[in-house]
Amino acid sequence: MPKIDLDSIEQKNRTGYPPPFDRAVAGRLVRRLSPATGLTDFGVSHVVLKPGAWSSQRHWHDGEDEFVVMLDGEAVLVEDEGRVILGPGDLAVFPKGTGNGHHLCNESDRDCVFVVFGGGVCTGGGYSDIDMLFTPEGEYVHKDGTPYAKRRV
Amino acid sequence: MPKIDLDSIEQKNRTGYPPPFDRAVAGRLVRRLSPATGLTDFGVSHVVLKPGAWSSQRHWHDGEDEFVVMLDGEAVLVEDEGRVILGPGDLAVFPKGTGNGHHLCNESDRDCVFVVFGGGVCTGGGYSDIDMLFTPEGEYVHKDGTPYAKRRV
Repeated sequence: MPKIDLDSIEQKNRTGYPPPFDRAVAGRLVRRLSPATGLTDFGVSHVVLKPGAWSSQRHWHDGEDEFVVMLDGEAVLVEDEGRVILGPGDLAVFPKGTGNGHHLCNESDRDCVFVVFGGGVCTGGGYSDIDMLFTPEGEYVHKDGTPYAKRRV
Repeated sequence: MPKIDLDSIEQKNRTGYPPPFDRAVAGRLVRRLSPATGLTDFGVSHVVLKPGAWSSQRHWHDGEDEFVVMLDGEAVLVEDEGRVILGPGDLAVFPKGTGNGHHLCNESDRDCVFVVFGGGVCTGGGYSDIDMLFTPEGEYVHKDGTPYAKRRV
């Protein structure tokens, strides 16, 4: 049956971010649902953020739309314009190519849970608050093009 | 800001199903979120099913993956293998091309709410329990190819 048994899908907290940018996502636990369930038309991940954790460094995608469905707990969504609280049932949308970085930060004292969808083609993107871009080839580079030692995972 | 204001997006209950297949979805209220929010890489709809309403006739897509996130209330998910209850936070996945039709039925006495995602390319599909297919061109036809008078919306 198509109802997903989350317990059967491994939760990982790895990241390709070079230090010190990796620290903010140490408390991010991700289940990648698309490969586990046979989807190929878009990516879906189930994400738990422990208190203090971020979903990512504040970023945008040049070629991939994103969509977030909040399931449980509370997160602060940050964009160039400011901050807004997301709670259960809230929906947030990030069309590709805006150059307006976003991320979710768990500033509460309990876990928050969301599902994030991504489509399109990776043509790169960037980070709003740090000296980093990501390339279509999965590399992290400084904004002057110099590579970091680590790759996206 | 990217948080979606659902009240600003019109809720519609139209369908292109020919009678009598349209009756089952008369209590289905849909907000199409992708055109309203600038997404193009996948489709997203916010759906409310009134008591007794179905999400659709039981169907499959030949070329489009689907994914459902239950937000509120309770629905019965039906596939060839049987029935399973979906409640808040449950996730369900429908890879394209299985030929195994699915739909959600609100058999409870209050509204249920879910978000549904669709990607890929419409290459047609069919209905498990009635004499109907849909074509890539948006037509409804009998399983012998004879067209119905109405088109998909």
